[in-house]
Amino acid sequence: MSLLTVGSVAFDALETPFGKTDKIIGGAATFITLSASYFTKNNNLVAVVGGDFPQAMIDILVSHGVNTDGLQIVPEGKTFFWSGKYHNDMNSRDTLDVQLNVMADFDPVVPESYQNCQYLMLGNTAPAIQKMVIERMTNRPKLVMLDTMNFWMDSAMDDLKTVIKMVDLLTINDEEARQLSGDYSLRKAAKTIMAMGPKTLIIKKGEHGALLFQGDRLFFVPALPLENVFDPTGAGDTFAGGFIGHLAATDDISFENMKRALVYGSAMASFCVEKFGSERIQNLTQADIKARVQEFVQLAHFDM
Amino acid sequence: MSLLTVGSVAFDALETPFGKTDKIIGGAATFITLSASYFTKNNNLVAVVGGDFPQAMIDILVSHGVNTDGLQIVPEGKTFFWSGKYHNDMNSRDTLDVQLNVMADFDPVVPESYQNCQYLMLGNTAPAIQKMVIERMTNRPKLVMLDTMNFWMDSAMDDLKTVIKMVDLLTINDEEARQLSGDYSLRKAAKTIMAMGPKTLIIKKGEHGALLFQGDRLFFVPALPLENVFDPTGAGDTFAGGFIGHLAATDDISFENMKRALVYGSAMASFCVEKFGSERIQNLTQADIKARVQEFVQLAHFDM
Repeated sequence: MSLLTVGSVAFDALETPFGKTDKIIGGAATFITLSASYFTKNNNLVAVVGGDFPQAMIDILVSHGVNTDGLQIVPEGKTFFWSGKYHNDMNSRDTLDVQLNVMADFDPVVPESYQNCQYLMLGNTAPAIQKMVIERMTNRPKLVMLDTMNFWMDSAMDDLKTVIKMVDLLTINDEEARQLSGDYSLRKAAKTIMAMGPKTLIIKKGEHGALLFQGDRLFFVPALPLENVFDPTGAGDTFAGGFIGHLAATDDISFENMKRALVYGSAMASFCVEKFGSERIQNLTQADIKARVQEFVQLAHFDM
Repeated sequence: MSLLTVGSVAFDALETPFGKTDKIIGGAATFITLSASYFTKNNNLVAVVGGDFPQAMIDILVSHGVNTDGLQIVPEGKTFFWSGKYHNDMNSRDTLDVQLNVMADFDPVVPESYQNCQYLMLGNTAPAIQKMVIERMTNRPKLVMLDTMNFWMDSAMDDLKTVIKMVDLLTINDEEARQLSGDYSLRKAAKTIMAMGPKTLIIKKGEHGALLFQGDRLFFVPALPLENVFDPTGAGDTFAGGFIGHLAATDDISFENMKRALVYGSAMASFCVEKFGSERIQNLTQADIKARVQEFVQLAHFDM
């Protein structure tokens, strides 16, 4: 089934304990669509970039089967830019600079040819834009998944709560789940958040794995312990792309299949952090992914 | 097979966000032997208490099948006392008071009747005492497991490294693994630590689960997300007791069986934190444990 992803395509400048980069390609929708491309070839993008965005990167997306008909290019505009520095533990970071540029006036036009998409992934961006996309779908998708972050909880909580009510699946990290719910226990937080609308919730815990909640059902997938983590940027987006890419490819939204999707998402995220930016997830093979999934099976599987 | 546990039997006074206690019974060996008692009835204790220690608590240990022949009572002495306060996140705590009392001169005498124990659990205490116990075993046990903490890394690192070299299995938490190895990545830390002697390493991550390392093999068990965590005191000891209790009961130290032991240990620890002190793990049934283990299976199991 077809997947539509809406979100940022951007420039990032990163500093981690292992090095720093000049402007490289980033953005939630970049990571999501690249990651999903290993699962589904019906992979449609809505985003906006400026005239400064390299055609070579668009070509890379296209070579991965991403449909860029919905990628708006504002020739006189500049691409969204984010700069950040990770602390030594790689779990926390400081934002050094944000330049919204063309994202400030982003009008997320959904091309007619995307209207039948059954899986909608709303990457992290302003809740008002995410809501607009849902309203512009003529047919309600089978599954609407939303990613967001603490920035929107601080600055646009009312808008965020409105759009959260409209989606099937929300994905946030553990601290954001605590902030959104007011509960410290993640189990309590999940109940509170599911009562806000989404039937399914994924709580990402970074190097500590991810939890999938649906009603009273609960599933956990660990993160793969890695010798080297170079750059966590985009790991959450890559996770989301693998997750919804698998769902779209199989067109099965049962809890059992979501568990598999969580493993695929985690496997994809484990690749993402091994190099700076999206480099690693531009260059994977199906054999790489299969082998990595086997590592998760060995890591987590036991017989009592 | 028979299990010998050496460690503290103590008084604790605790403060958590959910309440505070007066002096209650604590100590590593208390939690370990109680937890192990649900797995093996050949469960032998070496520890020391003062004349102030209640006979009622010794009776509780005995009623759980713990052999207290090796429990020394110093009538004129006072029992080891620890007082601590947990922070709001329950992951960190401040020590408010420590009174070594009879532990200061603890001479860990191993009764003749314990000499054939095949499983030796060295609970957290001074590395010099742990070493003495190993040397006092006439026959080398089949498996020697050691628990320790950052306090001994700060104050007795040389002694600690000496005893670590003598054991088969070491259990520490993630921060301690980083301190002991000097490596931030837990995968690298595990390699460094296993090169110090122990063939097997368990890294405890509290609410984030536990990792089992042996050579190139790696297994992870999540912690059960709980709605309420009242008191984390003793959770690591309870985990160790369930782990080695299962190994001793089955007399199987294969990696596959250690994986099951890790699940049992985690299940026991999940009970421990639900009430203050050892109250919860004094009052479990086999049905409780079986049902809890099933929750772990549901939490972690997936089919790709």
